[in-house]
Amino acid sequence: MKKIIIGVMGPGGDATKTDIKIAYRLGKLIAQNGWVVLNGGRNVGVMNAVSQGAQSVGGLTVGIVPTSDHLTVSDYVDIPIVTGMGDARNNINVLTSDVVVVCGMNPGTASEVALAIKLKKPIILIKPYDKTVQFFSMITNHTMLVAQSGSEAIEIIHQILEKKK
Amino acid sequence: MKKIIIGVMGPGGDATKTDIKIAYRLGKLIAQNGWVVLNGGRNVGVMNAVSQGAQSVGGLTVGIVPTSDHLTVSDYVDIPIVTGMGDARNNINVLTSDVVVVCGMNPGTASEVALAIKLKKPIILIKPYDKTVQFFSMITNHTMLVAQSGSEAIEIIHQILEKKK
Amino acid sequence: MKKIIIGVMGPGGDATKTDIKIAYRLGKLIAQNGWVVLNGGRNVGVMNAVSQGAQSVGGLTVGIVPTSDHLTVSDYVDIPIVTGMGDARNNINVLTSDVVVVCGMNPGTASEVALAIKLKKPIILIKPYDKTVQFFSMITNHTMLVAQSGSEAIEIIHQILEKKK
Amino acid sequence: MKKIIIGVMGPGGDATKTDIKIAYRLGKLIAQNGWVVLNGGRNVGVMNAVSQGAQSVGGLTVGIVPTSDHLTVSDYVDIPIVTGMGDARNNINVLTSDVVVVCGMNPGTASEVALAIKLKKPIILIKPYDKTVQFFSMITNHTMLVAQSGSEAIEIIHQILEKKK
Repeated sequence: MKKIIIGVMGPGGDATKTDIKIAYRLGKLIAQNGWVVLNGGRNVGVMNAVSQGAQSVGGLTVGIVPTSDHLTVSDYVDIPIVTGMGDARNNINVLTSDVVVVCGMNPGTASEVALAIKLKKPIILIKPYDKTVQFFSMITNHTMLVAQSGSEAIEIIHQILEKKK
Repeated sequence: MKKIIIGVMGPGGDATKTDIKIAYRLGKLIAQNGWVVLNGGRNVGVMNAVSQGAQSVGGLTVGIVPTSDHLTVSDYVDIPIVTGMGDARNNINVLTSDVVVVCGMNPGTASEVALAIKLKKPIILIKPYDKTVQFFSMITNHTMLVAQSGSEAIEIIHQILEKKK
Repeated sequence: MKKIIIGVMGPGGDATKTDIKIAYRLGKLIAQNGWVVLNGGRNVGVMNAVSQGAQSVGGLTVGIVPTSDHLTVSDYVDIPIVTGMGDARNNINVLTSDVVVVCGMNPGTASEVALAIKLKKPIILIKPYDKTVQFFSMITNHTMLVAQSGSEAIEIIHQILEKKK
Repeated sequence: MKKIIIGVMGPGGDATKTDIKIAYRLGKLIAQNGWVVLNGGRNVGVMNAVSQGAQSVGGLTVGIVPTSDHLTVSDYVDIPIVTGMGDARNNINVLTSDVVVVCGMNPGTASEVALAIKLKKPIILIKPYDKTVQFFSMITNHTMLVAQSGSEAIEIIHQILEKKK
């Protein structure tokens, strides 16, 4: 039976310390709930931290890798999906996730939020900037949910999954 | 020899009348400068209008089509590139364009602006909303240029192409 | 740490009863060796059978799904990677697999064998047709290995993985 | 109005002199018929030769480029579509072509023949090896047409396009 897959999107090399701290804790919480963590697969930033957090409690991690080899794949990814298609893989990240959680912001992450809105995926923004919320609220009436912490994001995921049943 | 390709991105079914009017005129101007018009290929909104404008003066139009068939391709596309990969084709739109011009805004367009920033492509926003500029300026120090009309966009394209030489 | 991923490629709706029988048993054996089963994700043919076999002994299954939704995903896939890119996803199947095992033959499968050869991936053909071996041997000097059964394929996988260390 | 697009597939660096000679002449003939030449876009082998032939008589050439930059694009490509998705772009080559013509054979080309069969595209093989015809005839009842020269291929294309009307 299909497992529940929580996609966590966020900056790579340009992630802040706070992004990484939140992502690590979020990965842990996702794994403790028995859900699979999905991310962009590389060995930096939010991607790396959320996988590390998940694995620290025995969780399962899937990375959708932009390159065609394993050279920059995070050590904390159990299942690297090697796409060789660069940022076009962002669409796969979003399509594959039951819920998209966003932690931090940069251009790659913005493209994923935009695609998630287009695909009407449930989206949770953790501690977003005001300008992020203002911009995306302007271009959609699809609800973006806001959480102030990883644990609040987890509560919201539970509510989303409950409604889907 | 490679032709110069100007990508024009903007809303489809949800384009405003102003978006469409600007796009049509922009297509005309791009074609009159001898450049190829590239867009998302579908028979609606900015995509359709920019191709129609370009063809009205004998220009060449390329559409990067999201579907795997020709059913929703604009009648004004000379060369439909049939990708069958949905919104993942947005990355091809951006990679293929020498300059990205944005006319109107919706989630699909936002994903293209975000990818263009990530790929450091020259970007021109025509009559953008303040919140668009505020959001993207926050997440990048890559310069986004702003034009108030199609003809101003054309002037900026000339400057960009001149510098590239 | 990265898990070992064995890709099993073969016909969907046009699989023979023998293909399906071999695929089911192969899935079981792959899972019993602690490896992840990867396939094309749909609810038919070799894809479906190899996932079913793997799950029957508690194995983990990943399906690289061509569609943009879950409608035709096999019930036996734990982790459906939703690509929305049709047969272009065949390249992801091959790139992601540590070893490619081929069970049965049709055009989609032939494209995967061809891509696996191009990418110099280890390939095992189970009970191939003579014409398959003759054709692919003509266009490559990359070694394709031949097995007469699922269990022989497993032995060969062990040898391949041993050499990689 | 949509132009007619003839895709020419064949080996890159490993093309034979005969492949290249036929491809050059084929490109010329396609262009002289007013059709667009589509190919894999790189600066080697059949791709390069067919574009060069087409441009020698003023034809229009489209290259579906596997890389994310222009470094290895053929000088004879007018419109390089930059996909950044490696061999997954082979599916775009086939989807975009009204007719697929095959000149020479290697693993990449074999993947394109296989995908073209799967997508039921008209296929013309120029001077194919017996083993190629034997293999693909075994896995499909989709008709593959055989030509002994570029000019015979052109005649067949005319018949195919006539029937489509």
